[in-house]
Amino acid sequence: MLVRPKQGILDPQGEAVEASLRQLGFGVAQARIGRVVDLEVDAEDPASARAEVERMCEQLLANPLIESYEILVRENGA
Amino acid sequence: MLVRPKQGILDPQGEAVEASLRQLGFGVAQARIGRVVDLEVDAEDPASARAEVERMCEQLLANPLIESYEILVRENGA
Repeated sequence: MLVRPKQGILDPQGEAVEASLRQLGFGVAQARIGRVVDLEVDAEDPASARAEVERMCEQLLANPLIESYEILVRENGA
Repeated sequence: MLVRPKQGILDPQGEAVEASLRQLGFGVAQARIGRVVDLEVDAEDPASARAEVERMCEQLLANPLIESYEILVRENGA
């Protein structure tokens, strides 16, 4: 799952990276920094895995006030 | 682009999240934490955008000793 700062929320880490990239001579319009969390969960099917990870996001992994999250499910053989 | 701790490299942040999720009653086998960096770059085509971001990764965005990176390119209308 991916957690990103919401639109309009200040992202000082992203601003620092943007400034550093410019200083290195790269042409970059915007940089925003978030987290990627790779989780291995046991679930009956992709839908219930997604629901489980959504509960984890709400309770621990993301701060819904300032962050949005995106869940990507990949199936592994049972 | 996504930056993740390499296999075999300790990930204390991931371990902390894993322990917290277990304490909340979630069944999770493994948690690894990395960064997602969203960049807007001007490029002629997707291939040159990817090459440009690869140079950014090597120079600034990832630590090749302990991290691996993955670049995903999405085209925006010119």
